[in-house]
Amino acid sequence: MPAQDTNRLNGYACPGKGQPLKLTSLPLKTFTENDVDIDITHCGICGSDIHTMDEGWGHTLYPATVGHEIAGVVARVGTNVKNVKVGDRAGVGAQCDSCGSCEECQSGNENICSGKGGMISTYNSRHPDGTPTQGGYADKWRGNSRFVFKIPDNMSNEDAACFFCAGVTTFAPLKRAGVNANSKVGVIGIGGLGHFGVQWARAMGAEVTAISSSDSKRKEAAELGAHNYLVWKDANDVKKYNGYFTHILCTSFGTPFPWKAYFSMMRPNGHFIMVALPETTLDGIPPGLLAMRQISLEGSMIGSPKQIREMLEFAAEHKVKPWIQKYPMKDCNEAVQAMRDGKARFRFVLEN
Amino acid sequence: MPAQDTNRLNGYACPGKGQPLKLTSLPLKTFTENDVDIDITHCGICGSDIHTMDEGWGHTLYPATVGHEIAGVVARVGTNVKNVKVGDRAGVGAQCDSCGSCEECQSGNENICSGKGGMISTYNSRHPDGTPTQGGYADKWRGNSRFVFKIPDNMSNEDAACFFCAGVTTFAPLKRAGVNANSKVGVIGIGGLGHFGVQWARAMGAEVTAISSSDSKRKEAAELGAHNYLVWKDANDVKKYNGYFTHILCTSFGTPFPWKAYFSMMRPNGHFIMVALPETTLDGIPPGLLAMRQISLEGSMIGSPKQIREMLEFAAEHKVKPWIQKYPMKDCNEAVQAMRDGKARFRFVLEN
Repeated sequence: MPAQDTNRLNGYACPGKGQPLKLTSLPLKTFTENDVDIDITHCGICGSDIHTMDEGWGHTLYPATVGHEIAGVVARVGTNVKNVKVGDRAGVGAQCDSCGSCEECQSGNENICSGKGGMISTYNSRHPDGTPTQGGYADKWRGNSRFVFKIPDNMSNEDAACFFCAGVTTFAPLKRAGVNANSKVGVIGIGGLGHFGVQWARAMGAEVTAISSSDSKRKEAAELGAHNYLVWKDANDVKKYNGYFTHILCTSFGTPFPWKAYFSMMRPNGHFIMVALPETTLDGIPPGLLAMRQISLEGSMIGSPKQIREMLEFAAEHKVKPWIQKYPMKDCNEAVQAMRDGKARFRFVLEN
Repeated sequence: MPAQDTNRLNGYACPGKGQPLKLTSLPLKTFTENDVDIDITHCGICGSDIHTMDEGWGHTLYPATVGHEIAGVVARVGTNVKNVKVGDRAGVGAQCDSCGSCEECQSGNENICSGKGGMISTYNSRHPDGTPTQGGYADKWRGNSRFVFKIPDNMSNEDAACFFCAGVTTFAPLKRAGVNANSKVGVIGIGGLGHFGVQWARAMGAEVTAISSSDSKRKEAAELGAHNYLVWKDANDVKKYNGYFTHILCTSFGTPFPWKAYFSMMRPNGHFIMVALPETTLDGIPPGLLAMRQISLEGSMIGSPKQIREMLEFAAEHKVKPWIQKYPMKDCNEAVQAMRDGKARFRFVLEN
């Protein structure tokens, strides 16, 4: 490790498109009275990390320390900080700041901040002071306390990490779309996001169907709480579920995307919630089914701080828990490769 | 005209794909105690008529008498019919029947009937007795009284006709999406649907912006009640409206479709309501904007009988009125050609 400096982090940063991560010393933002320093204990590996390393979503600000499922221990707090204190276990998700003054921020919807530049991402963005934001494949994180969350006592840091992106990304839209005991929820893709989706929907009281391209995750889906399992490549399965789902949570995207099969399985007035964020445009959507079924195709962006707190309480109450495998932080390149190879069942977590 | 037969209609039917309409004698359905006969006085020309004549949406059941903005006078009612009586002025829209027993029908959402075969269209479909449904380019209509609506006293038949498809297709989704005095509504396409959209949104109290590809309808949009006029091909206009609209009602579709420009103008959590029903798939939707803005892309299918009644009351109260030009029924081919040529300002109505 490079020498310690309280205003720098040591992160496994991606130096350029497609290059392996490399331990790098990078500046933290200027500490303010609203900030928190966290000694990182764990960081989940999210698909976004890979999209960003590869510039799949557009320009990346290299060197980029990715990782936005951060858990750790609070090491320092500014004098204005009320929600955590030194020694608390705490986490940070995919958003690390927002303008705080727009209509969205003022109404508790910071995740869709409409201020100049919008929400500030935990990596591949810039803090208000201009310092590039750096994520959790590192020893240290610093940022605004509004986006730091105390981890519940009955939740370990290694379990908590993944809630801050994968957890809230699936929890928030299901809640917003009113999933309850009358809902029939389909979850497309049983992976990092989907394995949360199944658990949330089940805990919200819905009948849950795992939707996959093959039979390979049938057993795991049942263990996660899915009542049913559906293979979308099987025309009989698709026919059986015609007009069935009040909600579909889509966590997986491939091309060509079987819009017609998915939409045919939706109930009228159904919600098709898209939390997969592909690098390509969405093509081939059938306008007739969209109209006839009055389907609502809904985008969703992580969740607000309020939703993150609500999620943590809900998870603690309903014993929702990610399935994780751990890697030492120094082996992050190996872990990323395993993630690329689709080996996660269902989330890899890096550990310092 | 062919000889009269109380169980037949004389309609201007399309004999085959791309062929001109031809006066044709066709069977009405078997009369039941739930049915109503209407002597047609007027029928609006809807874009759907042309899609159907051309088989743009798929197979058409020829000969097809199109037209689903029907107004007339009730000539006969079955003994079970309570909502209209002989001599009443009444109309019919794009739906003429539904199963009546599914969850949707039972809850007053007959337009999204989930019974076998779904909602029954006023043309290019079949009545429950197997008779092909025939539309309003004709002298007579017969069908289920549940889809027949009394025309308000202060509304003429020629004005009433277009409400039954264009009117409710735009009214229902704006209502459902909660348009009110806090809304900023953009209406894409100032035509048969859009000119209703502008009027509805204005009457619901919203700030309304007409969105067009050129400057050519600026004056008309203002007369319809639009506060603003925006040319989407003008990059400065698009930039000016960045993050602006709580709702966009899309009544017009061309390829390539400027999804990115439209989505960039939406406020977070905005509703993009698609009532245009193109013959092609929807392609090129940017998933990043869909997610970041948490946009909901919503399909909508005409409206339910309850919404049609609500619309007629609302129109009467707020003096919403279509802009029409009339053609004699016998000149329907000429009128259809003028419609194809984009000459309607904003709706053509055929008159017997």
